[in-house]
Amino acid sequence: MSHTLKNVAVVGAGLVGSGWAIVFARGGAAVRLYDASEAIRAQALQRLGSMLADMQAAGLVGEAAPILARITLCHSLEEAVADADYIQESVLERVEVKQAACAQIDAAMRADAIVGSSSSGIPASAFTEGLAKRSRFLVAHPVNPPHLVPLVELVPAPWTDAGIIPVLRAAMEGWGQAPIEVKGEIEGFILNRLQGALLNEAWALYEAGLASAADIDRTVSEGLGLRWAFMGPFETIDLNAPGGIADYSARLAPLYHRIALSRRDPQPWSAEAIARAEAERRETLPADQLQARTDWRNRRLMALVAHLRDQPK
Amino acid sequence: MSHTLKNVAVVGAGLVGSGWAIVFARGGAAVRLYDASEAIRAQALQRLGSMLADMQAAGLVGEAAPILARITLCHSLEEAVADADYIQESVLERVEVKQAACAQIDAAMRADAIVGSSSSGIPASAFTEGLAKRSRFLVAHPVNPPHLVPLVELVPAPWTDAGIIPVLRAAMEGWGQAPIEVKGEIEGFILNRLQGALLNEAWALYEAGLASAADIDRTVSEGLGLRWAFMGPFETIDLNAPGGIADYSARLAPLYHRIALSRRDPQPWSAEAIARAEAERRETLPADQLQARTDWRNRRLMALVAHLRDQPK
Repeated sequence: MSHTLKNVAVVGAGLVGSGWAIVFARGGAAVRLYDASEAIRAQALQRLGSMLADMQAAGLVGEAAPILARITLCHSLEEAVADADYIQESVLERVEVKQAACAQIDAAMRADAIVGSSSSGIPASAFTEGLAKRSRFLVAHPVNPPHLVPLVELVPAPWTDAGIIPVLRAAMEGWGQAPIEVKGEIEGFILNRLQGALLNEAWALYEAGLASAADIDRTVSEGLGLRWAFMGPFETIDLNAPGGIADYSARLAPLYHRIALSRRDPQPWSAEAIARAEAERRETLPADQLQARTDWRNRRLMALVAHLRDQPK
Repeated sequence: MSHTLKNVAVVGAGLVGSGWAIVFARGGAAVRLYDASEAIRAQALQRLGSMLADMQAAGLVGEAAPILARITLCHSLEEAVADADYIQESVLERVEVKQAACAQIDAAMRADAIVGSSSSGIPASAFTEGLAKRSRFLVAHPVNPPHLVPLVELVPAPWTDAGIIPVLRAAMEGWGQAPIEVKGEIEGFILNRLQGALLNEAWALYEAGLASAADIDRTVSEGLGLRWAFMGPFETIDLNAPGGIADYSARLAPLYHRIALSRRDPQPWSAEAIARAEAERRETLPADQLQARTDWRNRRLMALVAHLRDQPK
């Protein structure tokens, strides 16, 4: 590791917090894990062991035991964060819950520690304004689950010390994640805005009866998604015209602008379309099989991550 | 093969037509390949051999030779299409070129043959209206290259015989492709509208200075794209809330609607942003390395397709 964040605390040991604990411990950090719920704390280490066993079976980690050994379960927030260089806050996505947890962290942390919040949508400015050490806080939004999908969005509040961003970015790279920097607290950050743009178009096409949900899904899973699993949208178009991205844009920007103009009056996802999509999905996948399919998705993700890791960049 | 299309003609032997010839021959069809350019005809079989050798090296086909042996190069369009059950038109994407090629096909084809056009944007109604057998024509739009990316958009013209769609859909499945049906000639069909929605948002974020092109790319290639390589957007959200897609929509549709409302005044991709992205890309990838990177992309695609093929659906 070429970064300086060796001692890491994770506050919140739900699915996201558990994934983070594995990320940091896999990356060599000493991890202190805390959750306010005694029930969650009681099962936390068992869950981590099970997650690591799945990763070992998929070839994503060598030995699970030394990784698990770097994770210490704590029974108070103060005990978890007091010596931490970095603290990952992963409590429930509600502003008052984030405010309360961050106030506790603020009081217990070292003045030079950094705090990243797993917030997927609430900006750091909404829950850190009144904190004494607020310049040390920012959003570090992972994709779920963070130990399988490497992207992390670093989103500073207006008062975040700009100097901590390169430090955290380097540390995230060192832990095997893929950090990006969002330069402003835009709603949805980058990831959910891109996902939302595609989802909004998908729903509009579905609502207009232009294709089934299964066929729209196929357009991505057997078409667009194959390139996007290893190249972003800009690199994709850069390689899709002989003269690169400017050449591609000269040819196709007018088409894409006409598509945008056709969606100038966006409607909410309609109750009718949602009910129809729900019925179509439940015919393909009955509700009692949702968990089994989620397990399938996680196995597929692990296999894909193992495949991608071995490819030339 | 459970379908009835055994004899296939490909008109146009550029990159797309060559990929199609491999798809059909790999699927067991007898393929007759024609191009109006003598220069392209002269190198067509050599190019097919080279493409098949790459596929064999990637484990995507067993023996290349029997596949190549099913492809016959023809020196007139009539000779190629006269006995065909299915004709894939893959000439240049210009309406007058498509019109001329389809008029020739119309005159030479059997009355019960089906003609799919590789058109990526021009609807079939724009180049088949005056044809005697126009009810047998539709768009069958592949992703490039069709022998690696399986999606095919079937887009009928208003006068297309509805009965040919299930026939062609079954045949495409039999050849190993992933056909979808687009119920109307909407601009961009489904694939380019979904890609366009994401690209338009990406450009807007980039133009506003909210992230670098590299970081926006990373958001997809290390985040969103991992799921989308094996699941579409609807299945993704169906598995992202305990109660499925209706539950997810109840929680998150308002966020995505606010994102849509924030883009009600779409601007064309600006010359300034395109120039900036071009400069950023050329710093990462100099122009003289575009071809090498395209070769890398094709190798990555082949390896990914081989990986995905072996996974449980």
